[in-house]
Amino acid sequence: MIAHVGVVTDDGPLVLPMAYGRDDDTLYLHGAVANHLLASAADAEVCVTVTLVDGLVMARTPFHNSMNYRSVVVRGQAREVADPDERLRALRLITDHVVANWDHGRPVSDADLRRTRVAAVSLDEASAKIRTGDPVDEPEDVAGPWWAGVIPVETRFGAPRPAADLAPGVDPRPPFAVPDGVGR
Amino acid sequence: MIAHVGVVTDDGPLVLPMAYGRDDDTLYLHGAVANHLLASAADAEVCVTVTLVDGLVMARTPFHNSMNYRSVVVRGQAREVADPDERLRALRLITDHVVANWDHGRPVSDADLRRTRVAAVSLDEASAKIRTGDPVDEPEDVAGPWWAGVIPVETRFGAPRPAADLAPGVDPRPPFAVPDGVGR
Repeated sequence: MIAHVGVVTDDGPLVLPMAYGRDDDTLYLHGAVANHLLASAADAEVCVTVTLVDGLVMARTPFHNSMNYRSVVVRGQAREVADPDERLRALRLITDHVVANWDHGRPVSDADLRRTRVAAVSLDEASAKIRTGDPVDEPEDVAGPWWAGVIPVETRFGAPRPAADLAPGVDPRPPFAVPDGVGR
Repeated sequence: MIAHVGVVTDDGPLVLPMAYGRDDDTLYLHGAVANHLLASAADAEVCVTVTLVDGLVMARTPFHNSMNYRSVVVRGQAREVADPDERLRALRLITDHVVANWDHGRPVSDADLRRTRVAAVSLDEASAKIRTGDPVDEPEDVAGPWWAGVIPVETRFGAPRPAADLAPGVDPRPPFAVPDGVGR
């Protein structure tokens, strides 16, 4: 659902959570024009990291504890997106990334677009890491009297809750499909 | 469960997911001695960010979509932990951070300790952000015919799965308590 985006500032590194979208080999970020991190990122080096945790891996010794996870690390120069068509496409991709609701809201206005900054990062320099399965202990520890195994972790969506100020006559069920959960 | 840790490298910012622990106003990270990020972090500025997503906030217009979340951003100079007592205490805190299993494994060896690097970051410069509740739309949009609301997100633990190579006679149920889920 979210990426952790790192930039270099005068006060050292800064890492903030952000929504994101992807179009083939380009990753998109967006934010208010006043967004400090996104302003720092434009035309600067960024690192965008997305992590899904699938399980806690408990070994015979805590030094071999681990997590099952899937992560992607993207590094590169961010590019501020100026082209109106690319901006609109990027905003739709970010909006529809988790739940596809762009087509079910109030149509986009020029004011919306003026207030929003969009940045693109190429996926040219991206690496993925995946860990799955059981803990890996020292051979001499495996026969020992200690428990070892995996505690699965899953991120699920609950039942959608309509806003308290939903207009009269609007169906309380959302008009878009909600997936089972994250990372499936 | 995890922090996203940012450092500045010669190739720009680098952000990686890591386990962590906390002792009052100190945050601890650990890794293999060969861990590149942790080596870069020693005595350098770092940013450690932890984010829990609690819900997708769907507004009448995607430009007011948001997420309900709790996040903490810690910035400061990392300190490599050399003192043996503090190292041991930090490793126990990191191990027991999500599920308390330090006391249920094979006792720690000198070799384990030699292979492990521990870094500390003071919580002096830390900020927290929390968003809760319904979307906030433009007043003129609220009366419109569009759905708005929150899709709750929850991260839960599944039933522990013992390792395939669990030694004969070891109880297949873990000896430690597993909480309901993350962020409760």
